[in-house]
Amino acid sequence: MMTAVEKGDLLYTGKAKEMYATNDPEVLWVQYLDQATALNGKRKVVVDQKGRLNNRISSLIFKDLAKHGIPNHFIDQPSDYVQLVKRVKMIPLETVVRNAASGSFERKFAVEHLTKFTTPVLEFFYKSDALDDPFINDSQVAALNVASGEVVAEMKRQALLVNTRLQAIFAEMGVQLVDFKIEFGLTATGKVLLADEISPDSCRLVDEKTQKSLDKDVFRKNLGDLTTVYQEVLQRLATVEGSQQ
Amino acid sequence: MMTAVEKGDLLYTGKAKEMYATNDPEVLWVQYLDQATALNGKRKVVVDQKGRLNNRISSLIFKDLAKHGIPNHFIDQPSDYVQLVKRVKMIPLETVVRNAASGSFERKFAVEHLTKFTTPVLEFFYKSDALDDPFINDSQVAALNVASGEVVAEMKRQALLVNTRLQAIFAEMGVQLVDFKIEFGLTATGKVLLADEISPDSCRLVDEKTQKSLDKDVFRKNLGDLTTVYQEVLQRLATVEGSQQ
Repeated sequence: MMTAVEKGDLLYTGKAKEMYATNDPEVLWVQYLDQATALNGKRKVVVDQKGRLNNRISSLIFKDLAKHGIPNHFIDQPSDYVQLVKRVKMIPLETVVRNAASGSFERKFAVEHLTKFTTPVLEFFYKSDALDDPFINDSQVAALNVASGEVVAEMKRQALLVNTRLQAIFAEMGVQLVDFKIEFGLTATGKVLLADEISPDSCRLVDEKTQKSLDKDVFRKNLGDLTTVYQEVLQRLATVEGSQQ
Repeated sequence: MMTAVEKGDLLYTGKAKEMYATNDPEVLWVQYLDQATALNGKRKVVVDQKGRLNNRISSLIFKDLAKHGIPNHFIDQPSDYVQLVKRVKMIPLETVVRNAASGSFERKFAVEHLTKFTTPVLEFFYKSDALDDPFINDSQVAALNVASGEVVAEMKRQALLVNTRLQAIFAEMGVQLVDFKIEFGLTATGKVLLADEISPDSCRLVDEKTQKSLDKDVFRKNLGDLTTVYQEVLQRLATVEGSQQ
């Protein structure tokens, strides 16, 4: 079905992905890279296999979410490093969902690491390199015309659905989903659609038995070899999803 | 009526006020100080008359708000530097309402100074000296058990009412209300009640003709004599309110 799609012009270079146009105006070509960055891109290294592993993990998760009633931009994974996705207009907000305290939340509020929340915490960050992606509330989102109140409400609704399903997937893998970041886009008809990626680059994952990090914190904090960790996540996920790695 | 109230133990020392118990368990004695601070208390100086001026301004505004259907903790102003208020349990959130961009909003989002918002911006800051009063969203307020969703909704409702009435008062004075900070408490029966103070210490005010600051920014930015400016604000307010200075 998708064999007719041809890679076109480079549209955007991200921290670990490149986005290309294709011969179909509604389809984008995502090239996953063997690259890891930290400190908002200031530290950057090559990580063997990372692009392939994240592409596979993200593809499996997107397919699972679609199967569970959460539509998203995923179309197909034609090869190890390539994902085809629906073209959407990205909303410049990072949506963060937290089930337990870690990272910036832990630092900001001096809460003990991995304190569990009774209900998930939802946060938005305004995507702007110039402003260093500031934390933003709903009222500021409205004042700056970043997104309408309806769009924000729909993003929250979908983010909580994603959280519920991701928690179930990771629980089956023996992994605690501490928090994650997702991004949404608007379709041509103005619908809010889950986009970007869901991988150990964008999730904070902790092994339930060993309490070891199974995500990019391994890189951020120099805790070991990232490829081995991501391979481990994919292995468990593929088992749960009954799929090939 | 209030002549029977006697000053009791010091309960709390703020940046520009001291709070004392009284012989009535439901009444607090607020002692306004001739003191100004900046940089979260790191810079502190004596400002002649400031306590008297802020007490009078705050008293007149609280009386006006009560008259316009916005209940608050104000009971009486028995003398130049003293205000008697209802004892409430303070909610540890600063509520900021912005009608135009200034201060931290302007810096954070690189928006032009005094850009007007089509609808007011509402922000909460978690009152904690140890954490440096971090900006907090509704979801974090819930997770940290700072206040219930109902209390937050009621604070927002009242904050917008306060904004509407304050804008009207200041417009009559030829002054633009750029933004302000208020604080709320809970009464013994769990009602959200406007408390703290409303003065040029907590409002950002700009003269509509000259565009000059008529608030604590004069002190923060060393723009001139604070006493003269606060005296000017009180003079105009007393005229509008048909009251003595």
